[in-house]
Amino acid sequence: MKSYDVAVIGGGQLARMLHEAASALDIHLRALVEDDKDPVAQVNPDCGVGKPGDEAAVAALVQGMDVLTFEHEHQDLALLERLVADGYNVHPTPAALRCAKDKRAMREQLAELQVAMPDWVAVERAADLDIFLSEHRGECVVKTARGGYDGKGVREVNAVSDVADWLEAMERGEVELIAEELVPYAYEVAALCARRPSGEIRHWPLAETVQADGVCRKVITPVPGADDALGAQAAAIAETIAEGLGVTGVLAVEMFVLPSKDGHQLLVNELAMRPHNSGHWTIEGAVTSQFEQHLRAVLNLPLGDTSARADHAVMVNVLGSELPDPCQAYAYLMQEYPDAKVHLYGKKVRPGRKLGHVTVLGDDLEQATSTAEAAAAILRGEVADWTSPTN
Amino acid sequence: MKSYDVAVIGGGQLARMLHEAASALDIHLRALVEDDKDPVAQVNPDCGVGKPGDEAAVAALVQGMDVLTFEHEHQDLALLERLVADGYNVHPTPAALRCAKDKRAMREQLAELQVAMPDWVAVERAADLDIFLSEHRGECVVKTARGGYDGKGVREVNAVSDVADWLEAMERGEVELIAEELVPYAYEVAALCARRPSGEIRHWPLAETVQADGVCRKVITPVPGADDALGAQAAAIAETIAEGLGVTGVLAVEMFVLPSKDGHQLLVNELAMRPHNSGHWTIEGAVTSQFEQHLRAVLNLPLGDTSARADHAVMVNVLGSELPDPCQAYAYLMQEYPDAKVHLYGKKVRPGRKLGHVTVLGDDLEQATSTAEAAAAILRGEVADWTSPTN
Repeated sequence: MKSYDVAVIGGGQLARMLHEAASALDIHLRALVEDDKDPVAQVNPDCGVGKPGDEAAVAALVQGMDVLTFEHEHQDLALLERLVADGYNVHPTPAALRCAKDKRAMREQLAELQVAMPDWVAVERAADLDIFLSEHRGECVVKTARGGYDGKGVREVNAVSDVADWLEAMERGEVELIAEELVPYAYEVAALCARRPSGEIRHWPLAETVQADGVCRKVITPVPGADDALGAQAAAIAETIAEGLGVTGVLAVEMFVLPSKDGHQLLVNELAMRPHNSGHWTIEGAVTSQFEQHLRAVLNLPLGDTSARADHAVMVNVLGSELPDPCQAYAYLMQEYPDAKVHLYGKKVRPGRKLGHVTVLGDDLEQATSTAEAAAAILRGEVADWTSPTN
Repeated sequence: MKSYDVAVIGGGQLARMLHEAASALDIHLRALVEDDKDPVAQVNPDCGVGKPGDEAAVAALVQGMDVLTFEHEHQDLALLERLVADGYNVHPTPAALRCAKDKRAMREQLAELQVAMPDWVAVERAADLDIFLSEHRGECVVKTARGGYDGKGVREVNAVSDVADWLEAMERGEVELIAEELVPYAYEVAALCARRPSGEIRHWPLAETVQADGVCRKVITPVPGADDALGAQAAAIAETIAEGLGVTGVLAVEMFVLPSKDGHQLLVNELAMRPHNSGHWTIEGAVTSQFEQHLRAVLNLPLGDTSARADHAVMVNVLGSELPDPCQAYAYLMQEYPDAKVHLYGKKVRPGRKLGHVTVLGDDLEQATSTAEAAAAILRGEVADWTSPTN
């Protein structure tokens, strides 16, 4: 055991990047992974194999560790409650995590906190959806309360029949559903902060997130063209949520931005209580990365400076690739873009899968954007002729 | 095996920081460590145990890997020559590495390249040293040609009797010695660059290195008060050496700076062909860190941008600690200095041992320096009263 020992459930890229930050600080990270080839298991010698709900595997994971944390919200809350009752530190707490795991619980809690959000309703029978559609110009979004991510478990709906399968599953008690209004937003942002058990909170600069098919494609910080007021407004909402729900660790609050007559209206879309794709730019772009900060927060250590290191940061995800392994594009990419910061997660290529990301910092937003986009395209294998670089 | 597989001999902090950089790029790093508790073995699942000269262990290490590299120069050159003869990629090559391992070979090679350096002589009998002393105001430095580091194997000498033990060992054929003049330098600098087999070279900004008892205490970049000409002069010398010796990977050239009537005189003191303590600031302070660059260079991938990310970077080593584990000071350190970037290597505390380092970036050199010094002092356990932070 080290002076600081952190257990994490989940073996993906977020756990892997947590390990990179933990290694620098000599914090011992132990991970519970579902497969011994998972991203973190490739780079960290202390990984056990098991599902998040495997009681014995989780017991072995937390043995002798200072705190248990998570890289995804699909956790067994009852199991976590028992750990807390047994005296283990669990951050975020199961009570907070419930609002990241369950979208209906999240909406109910945010309503209590009087946080602005899209109109929504819990769908308990087909008629609920029918009424909601009729009240919202015949269109809305239906979401499964649990289990969704990256566009999965989310459907745009114009008629009850569009989610007939989900309604049947609901009748069988297999899923819970909510409906939300389609918001005519101008763009989307993510407010990222960290809070530790002491109550200390630190906010990173606000980021714009660009989505396609429900998946984050690109993150730009600071938000192009936005004034400081937008950042302050978003941070205030994030802080209300972090304090109201008692969040510990990193909190990402995804919001819709709507133009309004006196500035902006911000409506909360989703929450994540862990390092988040919208904060990957902080690895190079901020004094303290979200991964280091998450470790500090869950260990109740004082939080690090969240200032940006550059005028602009642009992060582009690598979603799928035509290459058997995106690393095969390194020679070309590095020749063309010596300032691109490449992260690949060691995941097997599958269509649309999040394989890695590229971050570029700079004082010229346009150039940083075009470099990050081009570098990610190279990793996706979209460049036709690699033999004659043209840049 | 991954698309890129790098084998490294050595298990210390340099191998550990190489692993952190390799993980981000999904480069597979395999290390040969002398002890399974070595810094890299704590964080990397693919480590074998064995001495650098253990033929079987090295054969297992390089099996299926793209290239073999090193985190220290105390290598078995004959073994490496056999690997090269068998068709393995070894970078830096044994021929280049010889000049980092053997100070006499280094002096002879630099003389051929007409690189300016202190007066020196190979000491083959006591009389050689006696004559050298008489020619240099009765004082000089005697160094063992091999095996020295961090002030070990280096002695200031005023009489032959000061190194009587070494001269006896020399007579027995156990060591080779050289003598060098004591140079009245104003300060010391380290020129850091990387070169890959293609011949491409990239230089980082020049750094001042502050030593105590032969050990680097502090690194400041850019060199305070220096003009661009000094950096260009130092880079030209580093390039002459990198090309002249055929260095591949990171090269650090430590130099004495002497004021002269037309600018500066630079005299080469030491070489290292690997990531170097003088380049730890590049992790946060440069677009491409020396660890990422070393991986790129030995894999013959195009080199990354070496621009600085901030006006000033200051790195202070943590040399020994009063604490059983310097991590125990984290709560206080992080409270006081939220912008300090702490790296600890997972090494057991011993007096004067290099346990970690702290880097601070900023636009105010004085403040960055005082923060880095104070944070390192906290990790060394030198702060009397932790209960009442005064900052």
